[in-house]
Amino acid sequence: MTATPYAQIQTRFGRLGALGEAQSILHWDNATQMPDGGADARAEQMAVMELIQHEMLTDAAVPDLLDAASAQNDLDDWQRANLREMRRSWLHATAVPADLVEASSKASSACEMAWRNARPANDYAGLLPAFKEVLRLTREIAVAKAERLGKTPYDALLDQYEPDGSSEVIDRIFGTLAQSLPGLIDAALSRQAQRPAPLATEGPFPVETQRVVAVKLMEQIGFDFDHGRLDISHHPFSGGTPDDVRITTRYDEDDFRRGMMGVLHETGHALYERGLPALWRRQPVGHARGMSLHESQSLLLEMQVCRSLAFHEFAAPILRDTFGRSGPAWDAENLYRLNTQVARSLIRVDADEVTYPAHVILRYRLERSLLTGDLTLEDLPAAWNDGMRDLVGIVPPDNRQGCLQDIHWFDGAFGYFPTYTLGAMTAAQLFDAAQRTDASIAPGIAKGDFAPLFAWLRVNVHGKASRFSTTEIIEQATGKPLDPAIFERHLRARYIEA
Amino acid sequence: MTATPYAQIQTRFGRLGALGEAQSILHWDNATQMPDGGADARAEQMAVMELIQHEMLTDAAVPDLLDAASAQNDLDDWQRANLREMRRSWLHATAVPADLVEASSKASSACEMAWRNARPANDYAGLLPAFKEVLRLTREIAVAKAERLGKTPYDALLDQYEPDGSSEVIDRIFGTLAQSLPGLIDAALSRQAQRPAPLATEGPFPVETQRVVAVKLMEQIGFDFDHGRLDISHHPFSGGTPDDVRITTRYDEDDFRRGMMGVLHETGHALYERGLPALWRRQPVGHARGMSLHESQSLLLEMQVCRSLAFHEFAAPILRDTFGRSGPAWDAENLYRLNTQVARSLIRVDADEVTYPAHVILRYRLERSLLTGDLTLEDLPAAWNDGMRDLVGIVPPDNRQGCLQDIHWFDGAFGYFPTYTLGAMTAAQLFDAAQRTDASIAPGIAKGDFAPLFAWLRVNVHGKASRFSTTEIIEQATGKPLDPAIFERHLRARYIEA
Repeated sequence: MTATPYAQIQTRFGRLGALGEAQSILHWDNATQMPDGGADARAEQMAVMELIQHEMLTDAAVPDLLDAASAQNDLDDWQRANLREMRRSWLHATAVPADLVEASSKASSACEMAWRNARPANDYAGLLPAFKEVLRLTREIAVAKAERLGKTPYDALLDQYEPDGSSEVIDRIFGTLAQSLPGLIDAALSRQAQRPAPLATEGPFPVETQRVVAVKLMEQIGFDFDHGRLDISHHPFSGGTPDDVRITTRYDEDDFRRGMMGVLHETGHALYERGLPALWRRQPVGHARGMSLHESQSLLLEMQVCRSLAFHEFAAPILRDTFGRSGPAWDAENLYRLNTQVARSLIRVDADEVTYPAHVILRYRLERSLLTGDLTLEDLPAAWNDGMRDLVGIVPPDNRQGCLQDIHWFDGAFGYFPTYTLGAMTAAQLFDAAQRTDASIAPGIAKGDFAPLFAWLRVNVHGKASRFSTTEIIEQATGKPLDPAIFERHLRARYIEA
Repeated sequence: MTATPYAQIQTRFGRLGALGEAQSILHWDNATQMPDGGADARAEQMAVMELIQHEMLTDAAVPDLLDAASAQNDLDDWQRANLREMRRSWLHATAVPADLVEASSKASSACEMAWRNARPANDYAGLLPAFKEVLRLTREIAVAKAERLGKTPYDALLDQYEPDGSSEVIDRIFGTLAQSLPGLIDAALSRQAQRPAPLATEGPFPVETQRVVAVKLMEQIGFDFDHGRLDISHHPFSGGTPDDVRITTRYDEDDFRRGMMGVLHETGHALYERGLPALWRRQPVGHARGMSLHESQSLLLEMQVCRSLAFHEFAAPILRDTFGRSGPAWDAENLYRLNTQVARSLIRVDADEVTYPAHVILRYRLERSLLTGDLTLEDLPAAWNDGMRDLVGIVPPDNRQGCLQDIHWFDGAFGYFPTYTLGAMTAAQLFDAAQRTDASIAPGIAKGDFAPLFAWLRVNVHGKASRFSTTEIIEQATGKPLDPAIFERHLRARYIEA
């Protein structure tokens, strides 16, 4: 008996999924285990795996199989959604000529390498030639994908990270937020100034003890160490596969809070991956939906849950016991204050929950203008500084702390930035709906019982994988599309009205 | 311009090589990092990578490309040797029908799983059905490969591990050794009995300190930690890739010598991989020659070098300083005696240098008889015990310590065992030739200077990769084919005449 077209295409994508999982483990190995001298051989291994996947995906048989499978009348909804996601992958892979993909990949690698030196040297001018080449090729890719996908060039890039994302929607949402944000920041800072400054928790905090704390919290929250690991890397990330989730952090012996919050953030990502439906493992429909929903899961845990006063009531005794400390600095209330300090700051990755969206809106606006050509790379530093003044209220003294700070653009990643703040908003909206649906969620957190929350997330987010669009998942879970007012209400409640 | 057939086939095998490297890192991850819950997904990843490699290798285009490339008159000797090795891979891959490969792979997995329980339970009878199926399918594979390769069935299996290996040659060499070995063992034990027993080194030896010792010795010997790692696994091995060699060991807090000798053994494997010619990386001709030569490199370092009195003169002060010990037990001479104790024992992996070949010759003879059908699996335990009596001089009290002890056969690996002792003999012969060629090698070892030895090995073994056959490499390096008399002379010199 011959396999049906659907069965054939599912087998092909299952193999692609298995190769993707293998790459994900190798990527983790790169960041956590590999000696430096292994880099060239690893790059070769990864390039070959990339090439094989590209060939499997762009094979001449794929479009016919997709069409024939779509014509089958014996498919269920998940299978139809799987075909839709396969077609999306195939469209992206075939939209751009191979030589353009290769040129862009090389230009991005070269520019990223140059950026690693240019940033500490504050040398934007020196980076400009490489950066121009990256932008030129990214524009070409955007135009090619736009034509194929029937989208604007920016939305075609955005679609790589945020399937079906729309800059029209983002413009509206970010426009609303940008109007209220400067006032919100002012108000949060005024409210903060009315309270005594929180007491510092004095170090040192040995790395081993910080790890013990991290593991205790992760286990309590529901991370299963039989299906995952916690390691150290220079840049924290969540990687691996749904059955073997590998998160990383870095520890600062003077300040345990940064490493701990990093772990909690990555644990949110990890539990999303772990909660994806095992039945659809390695199939496109079984993958996480997109970057904004992924970020919503890390931010829901880190920001909504773990920076709440309730969470600190549960966590404070664990911190006191494990670090062997006591005194007023280690009260839940004081720790909560420390973890919710607001400040106008220059660096996005160090920004607090209130000012963070301003950093993102700036980057979103700039990258759109760069892509259309309304803004030139020569004018980027000045535009950056103007935007920082308007949105955050401070101006970087140099490009190192300005437009050179993030790797994304120099690595060719345009269209990624908005997902951070879409994720923060989605997190607020999901957590709000979850609490209203299940009254045991909020009191559970203060007692260290996260089961009700994750039961809700499994059903409403994790288990849906890519069965629906991000917008559909949000609407099904919360009763309405993404609404920036809910996020604003959260900020007001925590930072202004409390 | 179209690529030549040679260039095309080299590209294809380069991709195969890159996938093989990726698999090797994933295998290391399996053994050292992966949480148990990741096993099923990892098996799926590995199976897909295996399948893709099989498809690339058995593709209909391969034989035509091999023929066309062989007809090119612009190839150098390395390229011709590369084609020869490609053809060997292709012959092995296409010799056996896919369904037989799959049946054998499944039967071996099932039998290996059953063996993990049957061994501790001493249940040979219970394992028999699964073991029979493995042997039946292995015979079928041997016959299929024999026909394709123009070899006997046993030699066709041997060729997988020891390219161009010949049981006719092994019969002769092992025959010579088997005649003298019982007498050698008797004489070594008598000589040992004349000396006072060496003093024990008393533990405990913390794992961390043992690791410090291991790293010091590895670095001194020439292991480059910029291109490799040392980790812990249940079964020590040398894995990874030539640019990123990953060796493992296990530590016993009561006895540092076992872990240390394990590290030195794996370091020998690692330095062979690391010394393979970078120009031929990921090509068949650039791979290590075969298992006997690989084992010769680990045994040359472990047995010839690191169990010598000279090495202990260098290592004893490091051991004393790092473990913080002193006294007569820690003299070079006493440590040397500890590391060269001889005993009739039941378990191959615990055997000393003198008795080890007897364990191997027994297995070699038995596996040949099993393959021809001259010995049935029902009669294996009795034949094992008879062989132990004749060759080693003791009889196992049960099958757990007898024919159930090694994983090889139960996992379908017939034809592997002889490479251990061929490796030990090759090690003796290479080390003998090296010392006669360069008079600075022997005094270097006592001073911790291993550079002269490895300079010789790089030129005469490592750098040749698979450019020549094992026999050719031995002849070029030592002036004659493998000669068991040199190994015997080494045993007599160290264990009987000293």
